[in-house]
Amino acid sequence: MHVYLNGEILPLEQARVSVEDRGFLFGDGVYEVTRVLPSGLFEESAHWQRLQRGIRELKLETPEGFSREMVRRISLELLEANGLTGRQATVYLQLTRGAAPRSHAFPAPGTPPTLYLSTSPFQVPWTQRKEGVSALMLPDLRWARCDLKTVNLLPNILAKQQAREAGVFEALLVRDGVITEGASTSVFVVMDGALYTHPKDHHILPGVTRDIILALARELGMTVHERPVQVAERGRFQEVFLAGTTTDVQPVVVVNGGKVGEGRPGPMTLALQRALLQRMGGGGSAVRGRS
Amino acid sequence: MHVYLNGEILPLEQARVSVEDRGFLFGDGVYEVTRVLPSGLFEESAHWQRLQRGIRELKLETPEGFSREMVRRISLELLEANGLTGRQATVYLQLTRGAAPRSHAFPAPGTPPTLYLSTSPFQVPWTQRKEGVSALMLPDLRWARCDLKTVNLLPNILAKQQAREAGVFEALLVRDGVITEGASTSVFVVMDGALYTHPKDHHILPGVTRDIILALARELGMTVHERPVQVAERGRFQEVFLAGTTTDVQPVVVVNGGKVGEGRPGPMTLALQRALLQRMGGGGSAVRGRS
Repeated sequence: MHVYLNGEILPLEQARVSVEDRGFLFGDGVYEVTRVLPSGLFEESAHWQRLQRGIRELKLETPEGFSREMVRRISLELLEANGLTGRQATVYLQLTRGAAPRSHAFPAPGTPPTLYLSTSPFQVPWTQRKEGVSALMLPDLRWARCDLKTVNLLPNILAKQQAREAGVFEALLVRDGVITEGASTSVFVVMDGALYTHPKDHHILPGVTRDIILALARELGMTVHERPVQVAERGRFQEVFLAGTTTDVQPVVVVNGGKVGEGRPGPMTLALQRALLQRMGGGGSAVRGRS
Repeated sequence: MHVYLNGEILPLEQARVSVEDRGFLFGDGVYEVTRVLPSGLFEESAHWQRLQRGIRELKLETPEGFSREMVRRISLELLEANGLTGRQATVYLQLTRGAAPRSHAFPAPGTPPTLYLSTSPFQVPWTQRKEGVSALMLPDLRWARCDLKTVNLLPNILAKQQAREAGVFEALLVRDGVITEGASTSVFVVMDGALYTHPKDHHILPGVTRDIILALARELGMTVHERPVQVAERGRFQEVFLAGTTTDVQPVVVVNGGKVGEGRPGPMTLALQRALLQRMGGGGSAVRGRS
Protein backbone atom coordinates (compact mmCIF):
# COMPACT_ATOMS: atom_id res chain seq x y z
CA MET A 1 0.00 0.00 0.00
CA HIS A 2 1.20 3.49 -0.85
CA VAL A 3 0.60 6.66 1.12
CA TYR A 4 1.41 10.33 0.68
CA LEU A 5 3.76 12.07 3.10
CA ASN A 6 5.12 15.60 2.69
CA GLY A 7 5.35 15.68 -1.08
CA GLU A 8 6.04 12.02 -1.79
CA ILE A 9 3.98 8.99 -2.61
CA LEU A 10 5.74 6.06 -1.00
CA PRO A 11 5.17 2.58 0.46
CA LEU A 12 3.49 2.68 3.88
CA GLU A 13 6.49 0.94 5.46
CA GLN A 14 8.71 3.85 4.44
CA ALA A 15 6.29 6.57 5.57
CA ARG A 16 7.65 7.73 8.90
CA VAL A 17 7.50 10.96 10.83
CA SER A 18 9.94 12.43 13.30
CA VAL A 19 9.49 11.55 16.97
CA GLU A 20 9.36 15.33 17.38
CA ASP A 21 6.33 15.65 15.12
CA ARG A 22 3.75 17.58 17.12
CA GLY A 23 1.15 15.10 15.94
CA PHE A 24 3.03 12.40 17.86
CA LEU A 25 3.99 14.53 20.90
CA PHE A 26 0.79 16.55 21.39
CA GLY A 27 -1.91 15.35 18.97
CA ASP A 28 -1.45 18.82 17.46
CA GLY A 29 -3.28 18.41 14.16
CA VAL A 30 -6.52 17.95 12.28
CA TYR A 31 -7.84 15.26 9.97
CA GLU A 32 -10.59 14.39 7.51
CA VAL A 33 -11.95 11.13 6.16
CA THR A 34 -13.57 11.48 2.75
CA ARG A 35 -15.70 8.82 1.09
CA VAL A 36 -14.71 7.78 -2.40
CA LEU A 37 -17.43 6.55 -4.73
CA PRO A 38 -17.04 5.19 -8.22
CA SER A 39 -18.10 8.70 -9.31
CA GLY A 40 -15.34 10.39 -7.30
CA LEU A 41 -14.81 12.10 -3.94
CA PHE A 42 -18.15 12.45 -2.15
CA GLU A 43 -18.92 15.84 -0.57
CA GLU A 44 -15.37 16.97 -1.30
CA SER A 45 -16.30 20.62 -0.82
CA ALA A 46 -17.84 20.12 2.64
CA HIS A 47 -14.80 18.17 3.86
CA TRP A 48 -12.47 20.82 2.45
CA GLN A 49 -14.38 23.62 4.16
CA ARG A 50 -14.34 21.81 7.51
CA LEU A 51 -10.61 21.18 7.14
CA GLN A 52 -10.05 24.87 6.36
CA ARG A 53 -12.00 25.87 9.45
CA GLY A 54 -9.90 23.55 11.64
CA ILE A 55 -6.69 24.97 10.17
CA ARG A 56 -7.88 28.51 10.93
CA GLU A 57 -9.08 27.72 14.45
CA LEU A 58 -5.86 25.92 15.42
CA LYS A 59 -3.71 28.42 13.46
CA LEU A 60 -1.97 25.58 11.63
CA GLU A 61 0.37 26.38 8.79
CA THR A 62 -0.15 24.57 5.50
CA PRO A 63 2.40 23.20 3.02
CA GLU A 64 3.37 25.33 0.03
CA GLY A 65 0.73 25.18 -2.67
CA PHE A 66 -1.87 23.63 -0.36
CA SER A 67 -5.24 23.89 -2.06
CA ARG A 68 -8.38 21.90 -2.69
CA GLU A 69 -7.00 21.05 -6.13
CA MET A 70 -3.73 19.82 -4.64
CA VAL A 71 -5.56 17.58 -2.16
CA ARG A 72 -7.82 16.24 -4.91
CA ARG A 73 -4.82 15.51 -7.16
CA ILE A 74 -2.95 13.69 -4.36
CA SER A 75 -6.10 11.76 -3.42
CA LEU A 76 -6.69 10.60 -7.00
CA GLU A 77 -3.01 9.70 -7.52
CA LEU A 78 -3.03 7.69 -4.31
CA LEU A 79 -6.25 5.89 -5.22
CA GLU A 80 -4.71 5.06 -8.58
CA ALA A 81 -1.46 3.86 -6.99
CA ASN A 82 -3.46 1.57 -4.70
CA GLY A 83 -5.72 0.19 -7.43
CA LEU A 84 -8.80 1.85 -5.95
CA THR A 85 -9.87 4.02 -8.88
CA GLY A 86 -13.54 3.51 -9.62
CA ARG A 87 -14.08 1.54 -6.43
CA GLN A 88 -15.53 2.28 -3.01
CA ALA A 89 -12.81 3.65 -0.76
CA THR A 90 -11.89 6.30 1.78
CA VAL A 91 -9.21 8.97 1.78
CA TYR A 92 -7.67 9.89 5.13
CA LEU A 93 -5.90 13.25 5.42
CA GLN A 94 -3.98 14.52 8.44
CA LEU A 95 -2.19 17.83 8.86
CA THR A 96 -0.01 18.51 11.92
CA ARG A 97 2.04 21.46 13.11
CA GLY A 98 5.20 19.63 12.06
CA ALA A 99 8.35 18.61 13.94
CA ALA A 100 10.07 20.90 16.42
CA PRO A 101 11.83 20.58 19.79
CA ARG A 102 9.13 19.76 22.34
CA SER A 103 7.50 22.87 23.82
CA HIS A 104 3.80 23.48 24.43
CA ALA A 105 3.68 26.86 22.68
CA PHE A 106 3.70 26.89 18.88
CA PRO A 107 7.09 26.37 17.18
CA ALA A 108 8.78 29.14 15.19
CA PRO A 109 6.77 30.38 12.20
CA GLY A 110 7.86 28.59 9.06
CA THR A 111 8.19 25.18 10.77
CA PRO A 112 7.13 22.83 7.94
CA PRO A 113 3.78 21.21 8.71
CA THR A 114 3.31 17.49 8.17
CA LEU A 115 0.77 16.42 5.54
CA TYR A 116 -0.20 12.75 5.37
CA LEU A 117 -2.79 11.08 3.17
CA SER A 118 -3.74 7.44 2.88
CA THR A 119 -6.48 5.46 1.17
CA SER A 120 -8.37 2.35 2.18
CA PRO A 121 -10.76 0.13 0.27
CA PHE A 122 -14.27 0.33 1.67
CA GLN A 123 -17.11 -2.16 1.62
CA VAL A 124 -20.55 -1.24 2.84
CA PRO A 125 -21.58 -3.76 5.52
CA TRP A 126 -25.04 -4.30 4.01
CA THR A 127 -26.33 -6.81 6.53
CA GLN A 128 -25.48 -4.49 9.39
CA ARG A 129 -27.08 -1.54 7.56
CA LYS A 130 -30.29 -3.52 7.06
CA GLU A 131 -30.55 -5.28 10.39
CA GLY A 132 -29.30 -2.52 12.65
CA VAL A 133 -26.79 -2.49 15.47
CA SER A 134 -26.72 -2.06 19.25
CA ALA A 135 -25.37 0.95 21.10
CA LEU A 136 -24.51 1.83 24.67
CA MET A 137 -24.75 5.19 26.41
CA LEU A 138 -21.43 6.23 27.92
CA PRO A 139 -20.23 9.46 29.54
CA ASP A 140 -18.97 12.07 27.07
CA LEU A 141 -15.52 12.80 28.51
CA ARG A 142 -14.38 15.04 25.66
CA TRP A 143 -13.11 18.60 25.74
CA ALA A 144 -15.05 21.78 25.08
CA ARG A 145 -14.14 22.04 21.37
CA CYS A 146 -15.66 18.89 19.91
CA ASP A 147 -16.52 21.00 16.86
CA LEU A 148 -12.89 20.67 15.76
CA LYS A 149 -11.84 17.47 13.98
CA THR A 150 -8.51 17.06 15.74
CA VAL A 151 -6.37 14.00 16.37
CA ASN A 152 -6.83 14.39 20.15
CA LEU A 153 -9.06 11.33 19.99
CA LEU A 154 -8.35 9.51 23.23
CA PRO A 155 -11.86 9.96 24.72
CA ASN A 156 -13.37 8.72 21.46
CA ILE A 157 -11.05 5.71 21.44
CA LEU A 158 -11.84 4.80 25.02
CA ALA A 159 -15.60 5.05 24.44
CA LYS A 160 -15.42 3.03 21.22
CA GLN A 161 -13.30 0.37 22.91
CA GLN A 162 -15.68 0.18 25.88
CA ALA A 163 -18.60 -0.22 23.45
CA ARG A 164 -16.81 -2.98 21.55
CA GLU A 165 -15.90 -4.80 24.76
CA ALA A 166 -19.59 -4.68 25.66
CA GLY A 167 -20.34 -6.28 22.29
CA VAL A 168 -22.03 -3.23 20.76
CA PHE A 169 -21.24 -1.16 17.67
CA GLU A 170 -21.17 2.37 19.00
CA ALA A 171 -21.10 4.47 22.15
CA LEU A 172 -23.76 7.18 22.45
CA LEU A 173 -21.96 9.92 24.36
CA VAL A 174 -23.86 11.63 27.17
CA ARG A 175 -22.91 15.04 28.55
CA ASP A 176 -25.03 16.63 31.27
CA GLY A 177 -27.94 14.29 30.57
CA VAL A 178 -27.90 14.94 26.82
CA ILE A 179 -26.89 12.60 23.98
CA THR A 180 -24.35 14.63 22.02
CA GLU A 181 -23.15 12.17 19.35
CA GLY A 182 -21.44 8.83 18.88
CA ALA A 183 -17.73 8.12 19.44
CA SER A 184 -17.23 8.49 15.67
CA THR A 185 -20.73 9.19 14.34
CA SER A 186 -23.61 11.67 14.53
CA VAL A 187 -26.74 10.47 16.33
CA PHE A 188 -30.35 10.94 15.20
CA VAL A 189 -33.48 10.05 17.13
CA VAL A 190 -37.12 9.86 16.03
CA MET A 191 -39.73 10.86 18.62
CA ASP A 192 -43.42 11.48 17.94
CA GLY A 193 -42.70 11.10 14.24
CA ALA A 194 -40.17 13.93 14.16
CA LEU A 195 -36.39 13.76 13.64
CA TYR A 196 -34.11 15.07 16.38
CA THR A 197 -30.36 15.64 16.50
CA HIS A 198 -28.03 17.73 18.65
CA PRO A 199 -27.61 21.31 17.40
CA LYS A 200 -24.25 22.41 16.02
CA ASP A 201 -22.24 23.85 18.89
CA HIS A 202 -18.92 23.16 20.64
CA HIS A 203 -20.15 19.78 21.89
CA ILE A 204 -20.48 17.99 18.54
CA LEU A 205 -18.56 17.66 15.32
CA PRO A 206 -20.35 19.40 12.46
CA GLY A 207 -20.80 16.18 10.52
CA VAL A 208 -20.78 16.30 6.74
CA THR A 209 -23.22 13.38 6.58
CA ARG A 210 -25.28 14.96 9.39
CA ASP A 211 -25.88 18.01 7.19
CA ILE A 212 -26.88 15.86 4.23
CA ILE A 213 -29.32 13.85 6.35
CA LEU A 214 -30.97 17.03 7.62
CA ALA A 215 -31.35 18.33 4.07
CA LEU A 216 -32.73 15.00 2.84
CA ALA A 217 -35.15 14.79 5.77
CA ARG A 218 -36.53 18.23 4.93
CA GLU A 219 -36.79 17.29 1.25
CA LEU A 220 -38.78 14.23 2.32
CA GLY A 221 -41.15 16.44 4.29
CA MET A 222 -40.01 15.22 7.71
CA THR A 223 -40.24 17.48 10.74
CA VAL A 224 -36.71 18.18 11.94
CA HIS A 225 -35.59 19.52 15.32
CA GLU A 226 -31.97 20.43 15.96
CA ARG A 227 -32.12 20.38 19.74
CA PRO A 228 -30.45 18.33 22.50
CA VAL A 229 -32.05 14.92 23.10
CA GLN A 230 -32.23 14.07 26.80
CA VAL A 231 -31.43 10.61 28.11
CA ALA A 232 -34.63 11.06 30.12
CA GLU A 233 -36.56 11.00 26.81
CA ARG A 234 -35.38 7.45 26.09
CA GLY A 235 -38.90 6.07 26.58
CA ARG A 236 -40.11 8.12 23.63
CA PHE A 237 -37.44 6.94 21.15
CA GLN A 238 -39.21 5.38 18.14
CA GLU A 239 -36.09 5.12 15.97
CA VAL A 240 -32.38 5.79 16.44
CA PHE A 241 -29.70 5.90 13.78
CA LEU A 242 -26.07 6.89 13.35
CA ALA A 243 -24.70 8.91 10.47
CA GLY A 244 -21.17 9.36 9.23
CA THR A 245 -18.81 9.24 6.29
CA THR A 246 -18.30 5.50 6.61
CA THR A 247 -21.51 4.82 8.55
CA ASP A 248 -24.03 6.21 6.02
CA VAL A 249 -27.38 5.85 7.79
CA GLN A 250 -26.88 3.03 10.27
CA PRO A 251 -29.99 1.94 12.19
CA VAL A 252 -29.62 1.36 15.93
CA VAL A 253 -32.18 -1.15 17.15
CA VAL A 254 -30.97 -1.71 20.70
CA VAL A 255 -29.80 0.93 23.20
CA ASN A 256 -28.43 -0.12 26.60
CA GLY A 257 -29.77 -3.62 26.03
CA GLY A 258 -33.35 -2.50 25.38
CA LYS A 259 -35.16 -2.47 22.03
CA VAL A 260 -35.72 0.83 20.25
CA GLY A 261 -39.36 0.77 19.11
CA GLU A 262 -40.04 -2.68 17.68
CA GLY A 263 -36.33 -3.53 17.66
CA ARG A 264 -36.22 -3.17 13.87
CA PRO A 265 -34.98 -0.31 11.66
CA GLY A 266 -37.83 2.19 11.47
CA PRO A 267 -39.48 3.72 8.41
CA MET A 268 -37.90 7.16 8.68
CA THR A 269 -34.45 5.63 9.13
CA LEU A 270 -34.92 3.42 6.08
CA ALA A 271 -36.29 6.29 4.00
CA LEU A 272 -33.23 8.39 4.84
CA GLN A 273 -30.92 5.45 4.21
CA ARG A 274 -32.42 5.07 0.71
CA ALA A 275 -32.27 8.81 0.08
CA LEU A 276 -28.60 8.97 1.08
CA LEU A 277 -27.79 5.96 -1.07
CA GLN A 278 -29.44 7.70 -4.02
CA ARG A 279 -27.56 10.92 -3.29
CA MET A 280 -24.32 8.93 -3.22
CA GLY A 281 -24.69 7.65 -6.72
CA GLY A 282 -28.16 6.44 -7.36
CA GLY A 283 -28.50 2.97 -8.76
CA GLY A 284 -24.79 2.35 -9.41
CA SER A 285 -24.12 -1.30 -8.64
CA ALA A 286 -20.81 -0.52 -6.99
CA VAL A 287 -22.69 1.62 -4.51
CA ARG A 288 -25.60 -0.80 -4.04
CA GLY A 289 -22.93 -3.41 -3.62
CA ARG A 290 -23.70 -6.97 -2.83
CA SER A 291 -27.15 -6.45 -1.40
CA MET B 1 21.51 14.53 19.93
CA HIS B 2 20.65 10.90 20.56
CA VAL B 3 17.28 9.52 21.57
CA TYR B 4 15.89 6.10 22.44
CA LEU B 5 13.24 4.50 20.24
CA ASN B 6 11.99 0.93 20.57
CA GLY B 7 15.19 -0.69 21.75
CA GLU B 8 17.75 1.50 20.02
CA ILE B 9 19.71 4.59 20.92
CA LEU B 10 20.07 6.56 17.72
CA PRO B 11 20.51 10.10 16.36
CA LEU B 12 17.33 12.19 16.60
CA GLU B 13 17.25 12.61 12.82
CA GLN B 14 16.94 8.85 12.39
CA ALA B 15 14.28 8.41 15.08
CA ARG B 16 11.03 8.11 13.17
CA VAL B 17 7.72 6.42 13.84
CA SER B 18 5.19 4.99 11.43
CA VAL B 19 2.44 7.31 10.16
CA GLU B 20 0.16 4.60 11.57
CA ASP B 21 1.53 5.02 15.08
CA ARG B 22 -1.50 5.61 17.30
CA GLY B 23 0.43 8.40 18.99
CA PHE B 24 0.41 10.26 15.66
CA LEU B 25 -3.12 9.28 14.57
CA PHE B 26 -4.98 9.54 17.88
CA GLY B 27 -2.69 10.91 20.59
CA ASP B 28 -3.09 7.43 22.06
CA GLY B 29 -0.33 7.43 24.65
CA VAL B 30 1.08 8.70 27.91
CA TYR B 31 4.25 10.56 28.84
CA GLU B 32 6.41 11.68 31.73
CA VAL B 33 9.05 14.37 32.13
CA THR B 34 11.55 13.62 34.89
CA ARG B 35 14.04 16.11 36.27
CA VAL B 36 17.67 15.08 36.29
CA LEU B 37 19.92 16.51 38.97
CA PRO B 38 23.66 16.01 39.38
CA SER B 39 22.63 13.43 41.99
CA GLY B 40 20.43 11.50 39.59
CA LEU B 41 16.78 11.21 38.57
CA PHE B 42 14.61 13.31 40.90
CA GLU B 43 11.46 11.69 42.28
CA GLU B 44 11.97 8.75 39.96
CA SER B 45 9.59 6.59 41.97
CA ALA B 46 6.69 9.08 41.84
CA HIS B 47 7.04 9.51 38.06
CA TRP B 48 7.22 5.75 37.60
CA GLN B 49 4.08 5.21 39.68
CA ARG B 50 2.15 7.86 37.76
CA LEU B 51 3.27 6.31 34.48
CA GLN B 52 2.13 2.88 35.70
CA ARG B 53 -1.26 4.30 36.62
CA GLY B 54 -1.68 5.85 33.15
CA ILE B 55 -0.72 2.56 31.51
CA ARG B 56 -3.32 0.74 33.59
CA GLU B 57 -6.09 3.29 33.05
CA LEU B 58 -5.56 3.41 29.27
CA LYS B 59 -4.87 -0.34 29.10
CA LEU B 60 -1.64 0.25 27.20
CA GLU B 61 0.68 -2.64 26.53
CA THR B 62 4.34 -2.24 27.46
CA PRO B 63 7.48 -3.43 25.66
CA GLU B 64 9.07 -6.69 26.72
CA GLY B 65 11.09 -6.27 29.89
CA PHE B 66 9.57 -2.88 30.68
CA SER B 67 10.46 -2.02 34.26
CA ARG B 68 11.57 0.87 36.39
CA GLU B 69 15.12 -0.49 36.13
CA MET B 70 14.91 -0.63 32.34
CA VAL B 71 13.70 2.97 32.15
CA ARG B 72 16.43 4.09 34.55
CA ARG B 73 19.09 2.29 32.52
CA ILE B 74 17.90 3.81 29.24
CA SER B 75 17.66 7.25 30.85
CA LEU B 76 21.21 7.08 32.19
CA GLU B 77 22.59 5.72 28.90
CA LEU B 78 20.89 8.49 27.01
CA LEU B 79 22.15 11.18 29.38
CA GLU B 80 25.65 9.74 28.95
CA ALA B 81 25.32 9.63 25.16
CA ASN B 82 24.29 13.27 25.17
CA GLY B 83 27.00 14.46 27.55
CA LEU B 84 24.48 15.30 30.28
CA THR B 85 25.73 13.02 33.06
CA GLY B 86 26.13 15.01 36.26
CA ARG B 87 24.36 18.03 34.81
CA GLN B 88 20.89 19.49 35.11
CA ALA B 89 18.63 17.93 32.50
CA THR B 90 15.24 16.40 31.82
CA VAL B 91 14.24 12.97 30.55
CA TYR B 92 11.11 12.77 28.38
CA LEU B 93 9.40 9.38 28.07
CA GLN B 94 6.44 8.59 25.81
CA LEU B 95 4.62 5.29 25.42
CA THR B 96 1.96 4.82 22.73
CA ARG B 97 -0.29 1.96 21.68
CA GLY B 98 1.96 1.37 18.66
CA ALA B 99 1.30 1.27 14.92
CA ALA B 100 -1.76 -0.43 13.42
CA PRO B 101 -4.24 0.21 10.60
CA ARG B 102 -6.35 3.19 11.69
CA SER B 103 -9.41 2.19 13.72
CA HIS B 104 -10.71 3.83 16.88
CA ALA B 105 -10.96 0.61 18.90
CA PHE B 106 -7.73 -0.87 20.26
CA PRO B 107 -5.58 -2.85 17.80
CA ALA B 108 -5.06 -6.59 18.14
CA PRO B 109 -3.40 -7.69 21.39
CA GLY B 110 0.33 -8.04 20.90
CA THR B 111 0.64 -4.93 18.71
CA PRO B 112 4.10 -3.67 19.73
CA PRO B 113 3.83 -0.41 21.68
CA THR B 114 6.12 2.49 20.85
CA LEU B 115 8.56 3.60 23.54
CA TYR B 116 10.43 6.85 23.03
CA LEU B 117 12.82 8.62 25.40
CA SER B 118 14.81 11.80 24.92
CA THR B 119 16.90 14.05 27.12
CA SER B 120 17.37 17.79 27.17
CA PRO B 121 19.81 19.98 29.04
CA PHE B 122 18.04 22.16 31.60
CA GLN B 123 18.98 25.48 33.09
CA VAL B 124 17.03 26.99 35.94
CA PRO B 125 15.90 30.50 34.90
CA TRP B 126 16.99 32.07 38.16
CA THR B 127 15.98 35.64 37.39
CA GLN B 128 12.47 34.51 36.52
CA ARG B 129 12.31 32.36 39.65
CA LYS B 130 13.30 35.33 41.81
CA GLU B 131 11.35 38.10 40.17
CA GLY B 132 8.19 36.21 39.33
CA VAL B 133 6.10 35.99 36.18
CA SER B 134 2.68 37.06 34.94
CA ALA B 135 -0.26 34.76 34.26
CA LEU B 136 -3.63 35.01 32.59
CA MET B 137 -6.85 33.21 33.47
CA LEU B 138 -8.23 31.29 30.48
CA PRO B 139 -11.09 28.81 30.11
CA ASP B 140 -10.16 25.21 30.93
CA LEU B 141 -11.30 23.45 27.74
CA ARG B 142 -9.87 20.05 28.67
CA TRP B 143 -11.58 16.69 28.92
CA ALA B 144 -12.91 14.97 32.03
CA ARG B 145 -9.73 12.89 32.69
CA CYS B 146 -7.09 15.54 33.30
CA ASP B 147 -5.68 13.20 35.94
CA LEU B 148 -4.10 11.16 33.13
CA LYS B 149 -0.82 12.42 31.64
CA THR B 150 -1.68 11.72 28.01
CA VAL B 151 -0.37 13.24 24.79
CA ASN B 152 -3.86 14.60 23.98
CA LEU B 153 -2.44 18.04 24.76
CA LEU B 154 -4.18 20.33 22.30
CA PRO B 155 -6.15 22.33 24.90
CA ASN B 156 -2.95 22.81 26.91
CA ILE B 157 -1.09 23.93 23.79
CA LEU B 158 -3.77 26.41 22.82
CA ALA B 159 -3.90 27.90 26.32
CA LYS B 160 -0.12 28.14 26.55
CA GLN B 161 0.10 29.77 23.13
CA GLN B 162 -2.65 32.26 24.01
CA ALA B 163 -0.78 33.12 27.22
CA ARG B 164 2.49 33.62 25.33
CA GLU B 165 0.80 35.78 22.70
CA ALA B 166 -0.53 37.92 25.57
CA GLY B 167 3.05 38.22 26.79
CA VAL B 168 2.60 36.16 29.95
CA PHE B 169 4.27 32.99 31.18
CA GLU B 170 1.35 30.74 32.00
CA ALA B 171 -2.39 30.27 31.60
CA LEU B 172 -4.37 29.65 34.79
CA LEU B 173 -7.15 27.36 33.63
CA VAL B 174 -10.65 28.09 34.89
CA ARG B 175 -13.44 25.50 34.88
CA ASP B 176 -16.83 26.39 36.32
CA GLY B 177 -15.45 29.39 38.15
CA VAL B 178 -12.58 27.44 39.71
CA ILE B 179 -8.83 27.66 38.98
CA THR B 180 -7.88 24.05 38.29
CA GLU B 181 -4.19 24.31 37.32
CA GLY B 182 -1.87 25.85 34.75
CA ALA B 183 -1.49 24.72 31.12
CA SER B 184 1.59 22.72 32.19
CA THR B 185 1.91 23.46 35.92
CA SER B 186 0.11 23.08 39.24
CA VAL B 187 -1.23 26.30 40.80
CA PHE B 188 -0.97 27.33 44.46
CA VAL B 189 -2.59 30.36 46.08
CA VAL B 190 -2.03 31.94 49.50
CA MET B 191 -5.08 33.48 51.19
CA ASP B 192 -5.30 34.62 54.81
CA GLY B 193 -1.86 33.13 55.37
CA ALA B 194 -2.89 29.62 54.32
CA LEU B 195 -1.87 27.64 51.24
CA TYR B 196 -4.58 26.49 48.81
CA THR B 197 -4.47 24.20 45.79
CA HIS B 198 -7.05 22.23 43.83
CA PRO B 199 -7.76 18.78 45.31
CA LYS B 200 -6.71 15.69 43.37
CA ASP B 201 -9.60 14.66 41.16
CA HIS B 202 -10.32 14.17 37.45
CA HIS B 203 -9.82 17.88 36.75
CA ILE B 204 -6.11 18.15 37.56
CA LEU B 205 -2.95 16.20 36.95
CA PRO B 206 -1.62 14.67 40.18
CA GLY B 207 1.60 16.66 40.01
CA VAL B 208 4.75 15.10 41.42
CA THR B 209 6.05 18.53 42.43
CA ARG B 210 2.59 19.43 43.78
CA ASP B 211 2.84 16.55 46.25
CA ILE B 212 6.32 17.57 47.34
CA ILE B 213 5.20 21.18 47.88
CA LEU B 214 2.30 20.05 50.04
CA ALA B 215 4.61 17.89 52.14
CA LEU B 216 7.17 20.69 52.48
CA ALA B 217 4.46 23.20 53.40
CA ARG B 218 3.26 20.94 56.19
CA GLU B 219 6.84 20.39 57.38
CA LEU B 220 7.23 24.17 57.53
CA GLY B 221 4.10 24.40 59.68
CA MET B 222 1.97 26.09 57.01
CA THR B 223 -1.80 25.62 56.98
CA VAL B 224 -2.70 23.75 53.81
CA HIS B 225 -6.13 23.43 52.16
CA GLU B 226 -6.66 21.12 49.19
CA ARG B 227 -9.87 22.68 47.94
CA PRO B 228 -10.95 24.48 44.74
CA VAL B 229 -9.94 28.14 44.57
CA GLN B 230 -12.69 30.31 43.08
CA VAL B 231 -11.92 33.07 40.58
CA ALA B 232 -14.29 35.13 42.76
CA GLU B 233 -11.70 34.89 45.58
CA ARG B 234 -9.13 36.76 43.48
CA GLY B 235 -9.32 39.80 45.77
CA ARG B 236 -8.00 37.70 48.65
CA PHE B 237 -4.95 36.30 46.82
CA GLN B 238 -1.83 37.25 48.81
CA GLU B 239 0.55 35.03 46.85
CA VAL B 240 0.32 32.82 43.77
CA PHE B 241 2.87 30.35 42.49
CA LEU B 242 3.21 27.59 39.92
CA ALA B 243 4.82 24.21 40.57
CA GLY B 244 6.11 21.59 38.19
CA THR B 245 8.98 19.35 37.19
CA THR B 246 10.68 22.12 35.22
CA THR B 247 8.95 25.01 36.98
CA ASP B 248 10.07 24.26 40.57
CA VAL B 249 8.32 26.91 42.64
CA GLN B 250 7.71 29.78 40.25
CA PRO B 251 6.21 32.93 41.79
CA VAL B 252 3.38 34.63 39.90
CA VAL B 253 3.29 38.34 40.68
CA VAL B 254 0.70 39.52 38.16
CA VAL B 255 -2.62 37.84 37.27
CA ASN B 256 -4.79 39.26 34.48
CA GLY B 257 -2.71 42.43 34.48
CA GLY B 258 -3.20 43.12 38.20
CA LYS B 259 -0.60 42.74 40.95
CA VAL B 260 -0.82 39.80 43.33
CA GLY B 261 -0.31 41.26 46.82
CA GLU B 262 2.55 43.72 46.58
CA GLY B 263 3.51 42.48 43.12
CA ARG B 264 6.56 40.70 44.53
CA PRO B 265 7.16 37.02 45.36
CA GLY B 266 5.67 36.48 48.81
CA PRO B 267 7.29 34.96 51.91
CA MET B 268 5.50 31.60 51.78
CA THR B 269 6.34 31.20 48.09
CA LEU B 270 10.00 31.97 48.75
CA ALA B 271 10.15 29.64 51.75
CA LEU B 272 8.76 26.79 49.66
CA GLN B 273 11.10 27.65 46.80
CA ARG B 274 14.06 27.37 49.18
CA ALA B 275 12.74 24.17 50.73
CA LEU B 276 12.27 22.54 47.30
CA LEU B 277 15.75 23.62 46.24
CA GLN B 278 17.14 22.01 49.37
CA ARG B 279 15.15 18.85 48.76
CA MET B 280 16.53 18.77 45.19
CA GLY B 281 20.09 18.57 46.28
CA GLY B 282 20.88 20.99 49.00
CA GLY B 283 23.73 23.35 48.43
CA GLY B 284 25.12 21.68 45.29
CA SER B 285 26.40 24.42 43.04
CA ALA B 286 25.03 22.76 39.92
CA VAL B 287 21.58 23.02 41.47
CA ARG B 288 22.03 26.52 42.82
CA GLY B 289 23.35 27.36 39.40
CA ARG B 290 24.32 30.86 38.44
CA SER B 291 22.36 32.69 41.12
